[in-house]
Amino acid sequence: MSTWSRLVRFVPVSGSTPLIGEPTDPAQDVGLAAFAGEPIEVETFSGSSVLNPGERTGNKEKVKVVLSPLAQSEVGTIRCIGLNYLRHAEEVKMALPEVPVLFMKPSTALADPFPAPTVIPRAFVDDKAADYESELVVVIGKAAKNVSEEEALDYVLGYTAANDVSSRRAQFAQSQWCYSKSFDGACPVGPALVNKDQVKSIADLKIRGSLNGNTVQESGLDDLIFSVPRIVSFLSQGTTLPAGTIILTGTPAGVGWSTAPQTLLKDGDDFRVFVSHGVGTLINKVVEEK
Amino acid sequence: MSTWSRLVRFVPVSGSTPLIGEPTDPAQDVGLAAFAGEPIEVETFSGSSVLNPGERTGNKEKVKVVLSPLAQSEVGTIRCIGLNYLRHAEEVKMALPEVPVLFMKPSTALADPFPAPTVIPRAFVDDKAADYESELVVVIGKAAKNVSEEEALDYVLGYTAANDVSSRRAQFAQSQWCYSKSFDGACPVGPALVNKDQVKSIADLKIRGSLNGNTVQESGLDDLIFSVPRIVSFLSQGTTLPAGTIILTGTPAGVGWSTAPQTLLKDGDDFRVFVSHGVGTLINKVVEEK
Repeated sequence: MSTWSRLVRFVPVSGSTPLIGEPTDPAQDVGLAAFAGEPIEVETFSGSSVLNPGERTGNKEKVKVVLSPLAQSEVGTIRCIGLNYLRHAEEVKMALPEVPVLFMKPSTALADPFPAPTVIPRAFVDDKAADYESELVVVIGKAAKNVSEEEALDYVLGYTAANDVSSRRAQFAQSQWCYSKSFDGACPVGPALVNKDQVKSIADLKIRGSLNGNTVQESGLDDLIFSVPRIVSFLSQGTTLPAGTIILTGTPAGVGWSTAPQTLLKDGDDFRVFVSHGVGTLINKVVEEK
Repeated sequence: MSTWSRLVRFVPVSGSTPLIGEPTDPAQDVGLAAFAGEPIEVETFSGSSVLNPGERTGNKEKVKVVLSPLAQSEVGTIRCIGLNYLRHAEEVKMALPEVPVLFMKPSTALADPFPAPTVIPRAFVDDKAADYESELVVVIGKAAKNVSEEEALDYVLGYTAANDVSSRRAQFAQSQWCYSKSFDGACPVGPALVNKDQVKSIADLKIRGSLNGNTVQESGLDDLIFSVPRIVSFLSQGTTLPAGTIILTGTPAGVGWSTAPQTLLKDGDDFRVFVSHGVGTLINKVVEEK
């Protein structure tokens, strides 16, 4: 029996040490609330990690800053699946993959939600090719190795959202995608971690990306080419996925590079990834490094 | 002024806690000695990590097991450069890259030298496509970000060797290489870490791969397409390379998949990566998982 529906990691108004806990208003979108400066009240847990939350303390705290549900020190190497939405594979004119396409980001790419900025590094600014990718994130809750599709969800803790920030010219300057997607801050994650028990069917989840208020990506998770159990099982073959591993499951159609006219990220932009079922809205304010 | 020429991390005969230190015989190949069961004497340092070795203790210890110079907990996400030797790019019939081609392995792939086995996971055994790649490893000694080629070596601690173990059918079943090269143990590293001060010119280094006693790869590092300073500078653009980051710099011509007839890895094989200037011989005994 899980003891929580969703968790946030946050810096409280009362101190500087990050805490974890559950928002007391189950309907509140903590990403939108943090952006608007509205109060967010959280009932805290005794642990300091969503991987080991401990018990409800009965204490309530006000949120000062919402953090990514997991810290850089917890996620290890970030797994990302490319080309995993049917309509996105079509828009980028790539052949449908026969197996999940895996690339990686280092943990140093992990970033907190707003107010943490999404910084386009100086080395990529002149390319004018920074792009967004709204993604559902699967969080592994206990070490998984050689798991079957049938048992895969036993190893999943829950779900959150990410933006797989990418620099397209660097991406297409070489065959491998890691370089263009691994810079510091290229993986904002959050705002809330939703317990897998809250999602009866992953296909029911909805994801939406919006740029400066305009919806640019919108899909159900029923458009996935490879299901979440298939991905977890595939990635675990011969390979330990430690607790805390996060898996970005691919992005739906509508990335900026493939839109006509292109809708790439530039200084001052506001990009938002919304995921249903309580994950809420991950807000990234874009800053071009001077 | 560096206080050491080369370091090994090891389990001593006298205890179970890993120690670090410098072999007292500067001419000894610690990989070959460990394989032959010959005594290896090490003058220990006070620290527990090659990243922070501390001072010479004056104590001498006998080596029971040689470990990778860095632990999984120290290396973070492993960086690997593909197609970085001119003759290897020719043998795999791929176009010469215009920029360093980057893929990654998770830290869980890091493995110790012999007697740790190199296990081909059950999921890949039937492919009969496990391959070796002898590589020079660059170890980052202090966090590097946005460094120029001119200053890149200031951030390098030293050099060691690795085998970038790859499962070729899985590699060529998709566009991205991470999946096929990231299984547990797919990155044996060692045996010794040689201080960068011992290598006056990286182009003078020699690398050799041998399979069951037959030399299958042999090159000078003067065949590199992208130099070590170029790689470190390129990878650090917008991206923090934390201390402890290891960079596999590519493999020379002669990989098993491209050899006629193919010389792939199978149960019982003995693969060795030799790097000059004191790094020594990394020995991997191959085991197919039952």
